[in-house]
Amino acid sequence: MTNKPLILVTNDDGITAPGIRTLISIMNEIGEVVVVAPDSPQSGMGHAITVNSTIFVEKVVVDDGPQAEYSCSGTPADCVKLANREILKRKPDLCVSGINHGSNSSINVIYSGTMSAAIEAGVEGIPAIGFSLLDYNWNANFEGTRRYIKTIVENVLKEKLPKDVVLNVNLPNLPEGEIKGIKVCRQARANWVEEFDKRHSPQGREYYWLTGKFVNLDHGEDTDEWALEHGYVSVVPVQFDLTAHHCIQNLNTWNFND
Amino acid sequence: MTNKPLILVTNDDGITAPGIRTLISIMNEIGEVVVVAPDSPQSGMGHAITVNSTIFVEKVVVDDGPQAEYSCSGTPADCVKLANREILKRKPDLCVSGINHGSNSSINVIYSGTMSAAIEAGVEGIPAIGFSLLDYNWNANFEGTRRYIKTIVENVLKEKLPKDVVLNVNLPNLPEGEIKGIKVCRQARANWVEEFDKRHSPQGREYYWLTGKFVNLDHGEDTDEWALEHGYVSVVPVQFDLTAHHCIQNLNTWNFND
Repeated sequence: MTNKPLILVTNDDGITAPGIRTLISIMNEIGEVVVVAPDSPQSGMGHAITVNSTIFVEKVVVDDGPQAEYSCSGTPADCVKLANREILKRKPDLCVSGINHGSNSSINVIYSGTMSAAIEAGVEGIPAIGFSLLDYNWNANFEGTRRYIKTIVENVLKEKLPKDVVLNVNLPNLPEGEIKGIKVCRQARANWVEEFDKRHSPQGREYYWLTGKFVNLDHGEDTDEWALEHGYVSVVPVQFDLTAHHCIQNLNTWNFND
Repeated sequence: MTNKPLILVTNDDGITAPGIRTLISIMNEIGEVVVVAPDSPQSGMGHAITVNSTIFVEKVVVDDGPQAEYSCSGTPADCVKLANREILKRKPDLCVSGINHGSNSSINVIYSGTMSAAIEAGVEGIPAIGFSLLDYNWNANFEGTRRYIKTIVENVLKEKLPKDVVLNVNLPNLPEGEIKGIKVCRQARANWVEEFDKRHSPQGREYYWLTGKFVNLDHGEDTDEWALEHGYVSVVPVQFDLTAHHCIQNLNTWNFND
């Protein structure tokens, strides 16, 4: 018998990524950990689910920690669904996703496999947090994030998240001593200005690589972008009711039924 | 010279799907149409983008309509990005996505490739609408949807959508005469209860198919699910600022920085 919380860990960079290995080691200090994560990188997968293909799952051992681990051929959202229905003995007390190699702040939340796993858990009524570090490198230094991740997880376990809300946490790429603290924020209004890199295959066929420049259109000082630029860890509460409730009254004045 | 609106058409079922062919023929009555759509079905792709692979685009002729058409190896969100940066001569006046073969009501919006294209357009400042018919069959009867789609598009072109909002339109699978009208709704609170169908490969390896049952947890009469069940076309305004603004005050009372 244990009173330890049951924690589901997943990500979108794949089960061997340094980011998830750090997250697992932090979670081992807090609870009983089960990992169900993609067997390969899934970045940019958004909230994809595998509906037209099979999903393979395998029990694996990646390091010598106490966690149980499963490697899955599906997307991050698939991993959460499969964990809840087929792998875990009971509903987990928390789902954490990440630590993503790279930012999921502002508009990136909608493209993020990391956050799709957290949102999927949220839809199923499980408190959930996505963590991302603002460093795209595979060998990024995740050590500076430990203290902040632990603080946020402990708060979530103690205070309980509001219904139908998950957290999107981004961590600045700074040594621990230079991080100024944790800031609750709103999602900055930003977008990507794509520049497609057009090339020709050896056979002469045109193709593109998607590249782009992130543009922050939001000058507010209460946004995640502002917090990260100023050395804070950003915490954005994220909902999956996408209804723009403030527009319903306006739309009801349109001539839809004349 | 023409004063016709420039309309970008895309979908997630692929460029040859009967749903998009119907949508193209309706849009040809309203504006100058350019189609940039996936070359193969992309259902369940959520807001995926292609970051680790190449994207191919080809000019194609699918039928004898006046539209220009491009078939793209990417996701629905890729199609919109590529259309805006590489294919269209100017910013389109409207982007329509669909008609999806199957519902994208309530929580399905987060898994939907159809809606991800509309949201992507919205992020880029283009008025956008996703259309879905509540019939998963490839040979669904889309004719009954014509009048309602035309009405909604004409309203959007005339009234202008609020900033940072796109529309998620679902159409009941009913003959035109039995549809009661158009209803502005909020997203119902619902989820999928997954049941994984566990099987064994000829080599004895375990694998799963994702299946599930849709469960509507919401008894409100202002939801898309209610409208669709009662014979209405549902119109949900959808935003991509996912911030749960109502929680920020509460989260600011937590012990994040002690």
